[in-house]
Amino acid sequence: MLPSIDQLYEGVRAGDRALIGRAITLVESRNPDHQVRAQEMLHRLLPHAGNSQRVGISGVPGVGKSTFIEALGSMLTDRGRKVAVLAVDPSSGRTGGSILGDKTRMDKLSADMNAFIRPSPSAGVLGGVARATRETIVILEAAGFGTVLVETVGTGQSETMVADMVDFFLVLMLPGAGDELQGIKKGILELADMVAVNKADVFEDKLKQAVNGYKSALHIMSDASPDWHPPVVTCSGLTGYGLAELWERIEKHRRIMDANGERAGRRQEQRLLWLKNQVRDRLLDDFYSSNAVSDKLAVVEEGIRAGKITVSNGVQQLLSSFRGIED
Amino acid sequence: MLPSIDQLYEGVRAGDRALIGRAITLVESRNPDHQVRAQEMLHRLLPHAGNSQRVGISGVPGVGKSTFIEALGSMLTDRGRKVAVLAVDPSSGRTGGSILGDKTRMDKLSADMNAFIRPSPSAGVLGGVARATRETIVILEAAGFGTVLVETVGTGQSETMVADMVDFFLVLMLPGAGDELQGIKKGILELADMVAVNKADVFEDKLKQAVNGYKSALHIMSDASPDWHPPVVTCSGLTGYGLAELWERIEKHRRIMDANGERAGRRQEQRLLWLKNQVRDRLLDDFYSSNAVSDKLAVVEEGIRAGKITVSNGVQQLLSSFRGIED
Repeated sequence: MLPSIDQLYEGVRAGDRALIGRAITLVESRNPDHQVRAQEMLHRLLPHAGNSQRVGISGVPGVGKSTFIEALGSMLTDRGRKVAVLAVDPSSGRTGGSILGDKTRMDKLSADMNAFIRPSPSAGVLGGVARATRETIVILEAAGFGTVLVETVGTGQSETMVADMVDFFLVLMLPGAGDELQGIKKGILELADMVAVNKADVFEDKLKQAVNGYKSALHIMSDASPDWHPPVVTCSGLTGYGLAELWERIEKHRRIMDANGERAGRRQEQRLLWLKNQVRDRLLDDFYSSNAVSDKLAVVEEGIRAGKITVSNGVQQLLSSFRGIED
Repeated sequence: MLPSIDQLYEGVRAGDRALIGRAITLVESRNPDHQVRAQEMLHRLLPHAGNSQRVGISGVPGVGKSTFIEALGSMLTDRGRKVAVLAVDPSSGRTGGSILGDKTRMDKLSADMNAFIRPSPSAGVLGGVARATRETIVILEAAGFGTVLVETVGTGQSETMVADMVDFFLVLMLPGAGDELQGIKKGILELADMVAVNKADVFEDKLKQAVNGYKSALHIMSDASPDWHPPVVTCSGLTGYGLAELWERIEKHRRIMDANGERAGRRQEQRLLWLKNQVRDRLLDDFYSSNAVSDKLAVVEEGIRAGKITVSNGVQQLLSSFRGIED
């Protein structure tokens, strides 16, 4: 028996954990009826949302994300804050090897009544995972969570997606200035509002070199804001070293971006960009899932691959098929 | 009087400069009839295309691109090669302040019968400029140009567009490891197959520092090919210093990419990506240029900006308008 919109609304507003979970399940559902209901619920929650600090946290597997988030989240709940932790991992199902799927990796935070942990929505189209995550943020904000941490794996398009839904994007890195520094996913440093070199306790000898390496890389990139140059800090999720200073930097960023109006501006831009992206995804989905196009696509691609037809000609053939025109 | 397809085909194949120019004008035209004729012509030229070395050259204004291309192009024609120079600058019209619009900036090459210089197609949608440029490459290859240099300004999306149509992407940089190094357009280094620090004659004292800065930045990015790590070289378009070595690197890249099959693979991928991008642009263009959508868009954006409606709701409203459904 599904709870009513009223029940969900009241439950979320009252911070009822079970009903918050049901509300999230509703926005994650791909059932069209559920989606209509989800929109109705979100429409009611929307006026109560928007008040959290949204922080994206990225880093390759092995960088120590779970331990870091466990420590940072606990530090914040100790200070009386309500902290939500979400994950975006389009590659894995909820029941599979999803990050955060194994809650035992965040023992303390899982048992913390001021924390709410939610693994990634199950695999599906990338845009669907992002939509569900954005709408989950609305629910959690309306439920009174003042801090929303959005974890993502350090590879693929999910980084940009997460950067486009948060106020602050933190990139965790490992120390090591040699080969370990290589292989960083292209583009990820450019999204960073801060780089934190984690596991500072284990790799003390390599720390300075790593910090300098990241600093010079960030130095030659242009800053997204005239008022903020992404700093490079060191920390240890395991020992807690540097976490208070790291968070103070994030708070400072918030104060600056509130004062200069960029935080509000960034959120507006994010929403309008998101509108455009969703429209695009829906149009492309209609196109490529149509039988006429999928019948034609392989032939067109083969012709292009073999250099027998121009790309413009291929485009014309596909569009004609889609519109039901013989050619 | 427009030349016939036959005349254009024969003229291009014979290397007739006037008819090559007319053929390019035809692919640049946005007139639908011309586009049909252009496709017919390209279809005939296609089997004779594909044999050139396509090199993209990027760099911010002031880096000395024109002087560099003039010197590099002349060096290659002196060696008996036929060199075409194209420009992609979506921001400017052909008659306006377009790069290469002022041919006097390439005195020597402009008068060189083994060189063919063509300024950027006039401003229009970005995709249109890219399409025209790609199709111009087909014409020039069919006309026997063995080297095609595609110049682009060092800002904006035109870089990615050009990188997606060439075999080798060269980024020109200025020396100076301090503030001058800052402000590099995000993402541009990641496209680079090589970085060339130009004006080496003027900034001798800063050269080493600049080279090291770019090297360490490239070092932490993952390479696009296991067989090629983008080198950083120094040169001077003005004195000719380093140009022979620079070109030898580009030739070496070609030999490696021919041997491992990546050149052919990259071109196939580029064509298929281009198909997808053109389809996307056409679908979006149909959508946003429809009256129903443009009537609705401002209202939806305002609702989203004010936080009154969810993005998903906005998407739904726009799609319903587009499909002529009342809501």
